[in-house]
Amino acid sequence: MTDLSVSAHCFESDLEGDTLHEECGVFGILGHPDAATLTALGLHALQHRGQEAAGIVSFDGRQFHTEKHMGLVGDHYTNPATLAKLPGNMAIGHTRYSTTGEVALRNVQPLFAELEVGGIAVAHNGNFTNGLTLRRQLIAGGAICQSTSDTEVVLHLIARSRYTNTTDRFIDAIRQMEGGYSMIGITRTKLIAARDPTGIRPLVMGELDGKPIFCSETCALDIIGAKFVRDVENGEIIVCEIQPDGSITIEAMKSGNPQPERLCLFEYVYFARPDSVVGGRSVYVARKNMGKNLAKEAPVEADVVVPVPDGGTPAALGYAQESGIPFEYGIIRNHYVGRTFIEPTQQIRAFGVKLKHSANRAMIEGKRVVLVDDSIVRGTTSVKIVQMIRDAGAKEVHIRVASPMIFFPDFYGIDTPDKDKLLANQYADVAAMTKFIGADSLQFLSIDGLYRAVGGEDRNPARPQFTDHYFTGDYPTRLLDKDGETMGRKVSVLVSNG
Amino acid sequence: MTDLSVSAHCFESDLEGDTLHEECGVFGILGHPDAATLTALGLHALQHRGQEAAGIVSFDGRQFHTEKHMGLVGDHYTNPATLAKLPGNMAIGHTRYSTTGEVALRNVQPLFAELEVGGIAVAHNGNFTNGLTLRRQLIAGGAICQSTSDTEVVLHLIARSRYTNTTDRFIDAIRQMEGGYSMIGITRTKLIAARDPTGIRPLVMGELDGKPIFCSETCALDIIGAKFVRDVENGEIIVCEIQPDGSITIEAMKSGNPQPERLCLFEYVYFARPDSVVGGRSVYVARKNMGKNLAKEAPVEADVVVPVPDGGTPAALGYAQESGIPFEYGIIRNHYVGRTFIEPTQQIRAFGVKLKHSANRAMIEGKRVVLVDDSIVRGTTSVKIVQMIRDAGAKEVHIRVASPMIFFPDFYGIDTPDKDKLLANQYADVAAMTKFIGADSLQFLSIDGLYRAVGGEDRNPARPQFTDHYFTGDYPTRLLDKDGETMGRKVSVLVSNG
Amino acid sequence: MTDLSVSAHCFESDLEGDTLHEECGVFGILGHPDAATLTALGLHALQHRGQEAAGIVSFDGRQFHTEKHMGLVGDHYTNPATLAKLPGNMAIGHTRYSTTGEVALRNVQPLFAELEVGGIAVAHNGNFTNGLTLRRQLIAGGAICQSTSDTEVVLHLIARSRYTNTTDRFIDAIRQMEGGYSMIGITRTKLIAARDPTGIRPLVMGELDGKPIFCSETCALDIIGAKFVRDVENGEIIVCEIQPDGSITIEAMKSGNPQPERLCLFEYVYFARPDSVVGGRSVYVARKNMGKNLAKEAPVEADVVVPVPDGGTPAALGYAQESGIPFEYGIIRNHYVGRTFIEPTQQIRAFGVKLKHSANRAMIEGKRVVLVDDSIVRGTTSVKIVQMIRDAGAKEVHIRVASPMIFFPDFYGIDTPDKDKLLANQYADVAAMTKFIGADSLQFLSIDGLYRAVGGEDRNPARPQFTDHYFTGDYPTRLLDKDGETMGRKVSVLVSNG
Amino acid sequence: MTDLSVSAHCFESDLEGDTLHEECGVFGILGHPDAATLTALGLHALQHRGQEAAGIVSFDGRQFHTEKHMGLVGDHYTNPATLAKLPGNMAIGHTRYSTTGEVALRNVQPLFAELEVGGIAVAHNGNFTNGLTLRRQLIAGGAICQSTSDTEVVLHLIARSRYTNTTDRFIDAIRQMEGGYSMIGITRTKLIAARDPTGIRPLVMGELDGKPIFCSETCALDIIGAKFVRDVENGEIIVCEIQPDGSITIEAMKSGNPQPERLCLFEYVYFARPDSVVGGRSVYVARKNMGKNLAKEAPVEADVVVPVPDGGTPAALGYAQESGIPFEYGIIRNHYVGRTFIEPTQQIRAFGVKLKHSANRAMIEGKRVVLVDDSIVRGTTSVKIVQMIRDAGAKEVHIRVASPMIFFPDFYGIDTPDKDKLLANQYADVAAMTKFIGADSLQFLSIDGLYRAVGGEDRNPARPQFTDHYFTGDYPTRLLDKDGETMGRKVSVLVSNG
Repeated sequence: MTDLSVSAHCFESDLEGDTLHEECGVFGILGHPDAATLTALGLHALQHRGQEAAGIVSFDGRQFHTEKHMGLVGDHYTNPATLAKLPGNMAIGHTRYSTTGEVALRNVQPLFAELEVGGIAVAHNGNFTNGLTLRRQLIAGGAICQSTSDTEVVLHLIARSRYTNTTDRFIDAIRQMEGGYSMIGITRTKLIAARDPTGIRPLVMGELDGKPIFCSETCALDIIGAKFVRDVENGEIIVCEIQPDGSITIEAMKSGNPQPERLCLFEYVYFARPDSVVGGRSVYVARKNMGKNLAKEAPVEADVVVPVPDGGTPAALGYAQESGIPFEYGIIRNHYVGRTFIEPTQQIRAFGVKLKHSANRAMIEGKRVVLVDDSIVRGTTSVKIVQMIRDAGAKEVHIRVASPMIFFPDFYGIDTPDKDKLLANQYADVAAMTKFIGADSLQFLSIDGLYRAVGGEDRNPARPQFTDHYFTGDYPTRLLDKDGETMGRKVSVLVSNG
Repeated sequence: MTDLSVSAHCFESDLEGDTLHEECGVFGILGHPDAATLTALGLHALQHRGQEAAGIVSFDGRQFHTEKHMGLVGDHYTNPATLAKLPGNMAIGHTRYSTTGEVALRNVQPLFAELEVGGIAVAHNGNFTNGLTLRRQLIAGGAICQSTSDTEVVLHLIARSRYTNTTDRFIDAIRQMEGGYSMIGITRTKLIAARDPTGIRPLVMGELDGKPIFCSETCALDIIGAKFVRDVENGEIIVCEIQPDGSITIEAMKSGNPQPERLCLFEYVYFARPDSVVGGRSVYVARKNMGKNLAKEAPVEADVVVPVPDGGTPAALGYAQESGIPFEYGIIRNHYVGRTFIEPTQQIRAFGVKLKHSANRAMIEGKRVVLVDDSIVRGTTSVKIVQMIRDAGAKEVHIRVASPMIFFPDFYGIDTPDKDKLLANQYADVAAMTKFIGADSLQFLSIDGLYRAVGGEDRNPARPQFTDHYFTGDYPTRLLDKDGETMGRKVSVLVSNG
Repeated sequence: MTDLSVSAHCFESDLEGDTLHEECGVFGILGHPDAATLTALGLHALQHRGQEAAGIVSFDGRQFHTEKHMGLVGDHYTNPATLAKLPGNMAIGHTRYSTTGEVALRNVQPLFAELEVGGIAVAHNGNFTNGLTLRRQLIAGGAICQSTSDTEVVLHLIARSRYTNTTDRFIDAIRQMEGGYSMIGITRTKLIAARDPTGIRPLVMGELDGKPIFCSETCALDIIGAKFVRDVENGEIIVCEIQPDGSITIEAMKSGNPQPERLCLFEYVYFARPDSVVGGRSVYVARKNMGKNLAKEAPVEADVVVPVPDGGTPAALGYAQESGIPFEYGIIRNHYVGRTFIEPTQQIRAFGVKLKHSANRAMIEGKRVVLVDDSIVRGTTSVKIVQMIRDAGAKEVHIRVASPMIFFPDFYGIDTPDKDKLLANQYADVAAMTKFIGADSLQFLSIDGLYRAVGGEDRNPARPQFTDHYFTGDYPTRLLDKDGETMGRKVSVLVSNG
Repeated sequence: MTDLSVSAHCFESDLEGDTLHEECGVFGILGHPDAATLTALGLHALQHRGQEAAGIVSFDGRQFHTEKHMGLVGDHYTNPATLAKLPGNMAIGHTRYSTTGEVALRNVQPLFAELEVGGIAVAHNGNFTNGLTLRRQLIAGGAICQSTSDTEVVLHLIARSRYTNTTDRFIDAIRQMEGGYSMIGITRTKLIAARDPTGIRPLVMGELDGKPIFCSETCALDIIGAKFVRDVENGEIIVCEIQPDGSITIEAMKSGNPQPERLCLFEYVYFARPDSVVGGRSVYVARKNMGKNLAKEAPVEADVVVPVPDGGTPAALGYAQESGIPFEYGIIRNHYVGRTFIEPTQQIRAFGVKLKHSANRAMIEGKRVVLVDDSIVRGTTSVKIVQMIRDAGAKEVHIRVASPMIFFPDFYGIDTPDKDKLLANQYADVAAMTKFIGADSLQFLSIDGLYRAVGGEDRNPARPQFTDHYFTGDYPTRLLDKDGETMGRKVSVLVSNG
């Protein structure tokens, strides 16, 4: 049922460049006659948050309907046949890049459960730091888990809740979950949204034709011409309900112990789309600021500023504007990367980054080049890019990275390599890293430089304004699964290829 | 994920002829290095019991593996890539013709559950007459049902059982199930088989290279050269376990209140393969006997005995041998019925049975023809066949049916049309049926004639040797779902197209 | 574009049994509003003549349209989308089992050419014995051959003909072709049919609603309810033309030097469908006669007559009726052979004939069995069938073959193995063959017995009534390619996988 | 065989933006052990020249091999199975965007012909202005055309040439062809390249490990690390031949009447990849120059310069650098456009450009925006882009187009819409166009501004240095098909869907 194998991912991630990947994007809408179509468009706008699979659940007043497909939203959800199978005026959808759980259609969200009080479908972006612990408790209590997705744990908690009302059951379940997540769900009459107590993952509320929408980023509102209403707050649960007269009531509450918000900095560094507004700040402007601060912190005499596509482009523009060095496209991206590049011959594989990028010799030859990248994770792609630039005749190659060094893994939905694969953990100092990468110089943006680029102020060590654990090791929540050593232990032992 | 739609089924069942369909075939083997391959071959031999989908679960000592595919066994399970994904020396498999639950891959058996004590996979042939009642109780208790398959109910009962040991849990679950079923399951060390208390559905035990096998019919033993050991008895549970030293222990027990066995007569009339031995009797011989008894009960002066392919062939041969009228192939079957015949144009659809059968004019023209069929359900195909035979120039057309009239629905795994669609319930008497079908005469085998053909004796009304409820209305078990009026009520309200 | 590889064919032919295969079936109709649908149904009825691929060309008064697909007619040509692409009231179609040319869609007939006078599409069943010789001449003359199909040679001859009128060009081309063939073609107004001078391959004319039809066998008329008009005679060319007023004129002529007809005996032995009437004789009756004559020539004391399915069944019935030994189904055929059986694992492959056939032990055990087969080519399947019957407990196994021994290759469209692979050429005498096959006795029908079964008279050695070269070496035409040693030499050196 | 329908193209071209499309890219290599792999990589680098289909022919010393597939190079030609079917040390390949001929695999180049002297495969980029005239003459002479591709005409001329030697035949054929084209071919020992007398389409010669390469652009050399040798000159034919000792001889000649070179300006404006060097000039530098000249010719007071992705980016950068107005990404491109966007619902379709682009509000709101685009063809996309920018809150929207207005169709391989669909022909003046598009101002680069950007000098009206007929109507060759009114007349009347 799916052609994607593990080895394929390895190679694809070479092509993707050396960066972190996030798990998911979510979208939900209540009361709109085009619910499924709008959800499909919203997911399409959130496609950068996950390209592996997508799912939509709709409710037509009588039955829930679901479609789940491996691949891009635009591969499946825009044709008439698929959308016709998703009738109704309420729908939620999910686009996925897998972190937990193998690649399998039954893991694709949203997940659905029939309850005594009626059905419920839920989907989330992020990760639960106590998901495996809860799963073990549930199995001990006789629950059957069909997927390896953490979302199923939430469903079981809802199903087993001692409360009668669906909303109460949802809140009961959400209160048991720890970690970083944005969750949406639909019942027969309600659209529910919830954000984790620390507000690690983003979630915004919008409105179209007077109907409420929740989605991961504002770009999903823009594509359908919906208005941005406000961010869902950290620890907030919002319940929208269609009343018998067709009107919609909206009720917001807090899920429990209030904590200060700490949005994930990587949303600004790489994940969010540049045209999105996250936490009230333009992502594009934040990235340009990173480049500007980088130019101040790490200036260099050079002839051209060249972005490493695509992530480094706004920061490179900021660097160029601040430094006065001309911004030029020294690397050209090939947009036509075919699907079977995921299982090429060894010979083809050897061409690596050249399948996706090529040097623009006219802007490189004989020049001192500043390469600006958004982040460096393992450094493997940087080595190849530097070599490609040198082969094109660059006189000097200086790398400037618009974020700090990454030392620590994430447990909130970001797919981080093993700790010892991180460049920062492999080499004693920047000099050694520079040598490994083959550059003439290498510098990273400081943590304060990043904080100022995003929020305008230095990091407050007593109470950091964002979460930055991958740089600092300062995790915003306890890590129950990890510290209880269940993290990484495979609980489900069924290997399904379907 | 599947192209089969409901309307497709309607038309396919036209092509299949007017007969009943059974749900499933099962196969399991323990301790054999080629477990998955042998299971695939066994399922291929049982393909006549269900062509919609097939699934196999294997266990390799560390992990369970599963493959599930819509379509024929030989479409998927014989190629190296698929079999390589099913490692291990124990496996169970299932081939399915759907009765309960929509067409969806997640309904394809075997189903798997991770328990605290380890995983378990189960599959069954048959139907539970209290499945919906139990499902409702489970959902009320917080269970989440992912499929609409009754097998999942068994899994939940196992998962929630208060017993510790897997075998005890399995028995605990089985004791709660009512109806007609043959069930097999594997845990990390065991292969378990169980047959319903009345023994409605068949299940046999075999042996290959000293390793135990369970399967629905002996033909699945024959294809792999395995020895027939014995029938699993009604109400019996047999547990085979691999010991640490590699030896296999086999333990048999009874599941509860002992009852007399009543095997389903339709296994002899139509379902089982003619080369199988069911309940110690050759199916082929039983069918020929039906034809012979029919010739005695319902003789006719005629020139040729023509079987309605394929079900009527052995009975027609018996009829011819008994009556002395020559047996001839008056109807030729086209073996090359393509897959998209499932969604033909209306014009093509109008050709109906002619897409699969044609009259052999040389054996029909100017002749008095006795058409022998195994059974008549709705009679719609008979009308078309008679017309085809008349068009080919037959002087007279006499239909002889090698089983009694069908008046009642089945609740044990046979897909019966609505009661008022049954020919026997639509017309007052045989004369009216004959007129509807357009034959010169029409006669059915008596119930005693059928009993004698299969078991050698008349029906014992006090304690019938078989179950014959579709003919007599004498159901061998209570019908909890039906009498509690849950039968037919759709509990799950999720419509999945994947 | 196609999954069928050469090795796949080898294995499939194991499953098909040890018999010869014919190349093709053809169907054409003029002036009927449902031309493409009727052609699809006709090809479906002719599916036994070729299962590899099928093609249809229609003309809608303005443009020619074509569809070509690997696989069964019913896989592609019965759905609305495909038929909608074949508008118009005239169409020809072709179903193919490949002999000459690799497996490739561009070889699938009908083939089309744009001429100065308008387009023409042609298709044929059979083989040209001077095809390669002509192809070489054409290439030397600057022609470009896109396919490796002999039909293209005919197209080139038509295109290069010095005649102006399409019919004259067609006749001009046909007169240059030697061998055994039935050819049909359409131009913008005409349906043309031609049969080779010796009448080796069959071709019949029919009529539906007053519109002319040509097809390989009468069964293609029966399926659509068309009337049989007459056989196309050997060496005859029939031209049907739509006139401006919508009426259809039909003109018949002889292509050249008249010769006596010699229909291919293998049409009666194996190729034609039993319900077809070929050369005015029922194929089914001829096959039963073969069995009767075999019973007279080669009687044996036995308990049961068992047909080797499917080819041997009518002859077995004849043998049983003549001998008085009961006819029984001792071998059961599995109808559900999946598509990927074409590339099974080595383990699965080892199961050979058992994937398709199984012994019906109840009719075999302890019995003296007469196995009746239609023909033996290489004998490899016979070895496996005999072994299977012995494994099922037969006391004696006697093989009776309803045709003579095959010594010589065919050059008229029958796919014969290399001469030294033929059983008859591998062993000195019947005793040695019997030993190889493992039977207790083995006997073949005599050539005169076969002639009498089909035509009622012994073979006339001076002027044989049929062609029987595979048995006798008496070829009905010269063999220019072979004797000029071009046969088997690959002229085209392009290997296309599309 | 292909899912691409005509209507699909219409919509795709909406998504592609309002620009012209070129037909093809070619690549060939002789004497290298990895010939097919290198050809696949070269075609991947040329993918921007055609995404509809790709084909490769190789020769292994004994046989020619061919693979042709609809879709991207990377979808098919990088996996081991496909490359394994293309053995040999010489290969040519072609990637296609169709202009002439329907979408069908048999039209995909390279095309192959078996000649008396051995096989030949050819492929070309461009179009013949006398292709239909020659095709008609060939058909009148008895040739059969299997495709609707002009390349087949060349093959026929080669096949029918009175010369013996393949090279002579190739030259003989090429001399009869008029128009703009770059052609490559392989025989059993030779790689041949030819460029049209006016040099309209580009073709360069490279070298890898001492083996000759021909390809459309230098970027195909860069990807495989090959050296650029020189441009193939206009009217030049270069023949490379492997000698018996393995050495390679190279011979260059002129095809006929020498004419001044006039490269197509649109290669610089849009077609060629920015990192390619065409006619000795960096395409990226030329595009930046266009933007700089545009800033001089058409300045405007504004806050940001925003490129219309992707074509307008280098020109926008040039405009920004020249004008001093900041360059900003005001439009964000969604890279994840799925394949079924080609047949979306009407609702989805209505979202038009928003499926691919979105406004970056932070850079637009309240700002005076200069949108820089590479060209405007029909203007339909410009309307939508302007609307999107206005919706995002722009204060003013000024469009600057980095090429002159397009008035005339192309006949040399560029897919131009009907003349009356061109924006320049629909409105009387720029003011009317501005109003239609909804911008505050609209200005185009002058023809001299374009000439200076590319070649450094104004247009020489007496002898233009480039061809610019789409702007000026000054066609560099006669237009035989068009003036003979065969252009657009459909000669082949076979509609194939395979």
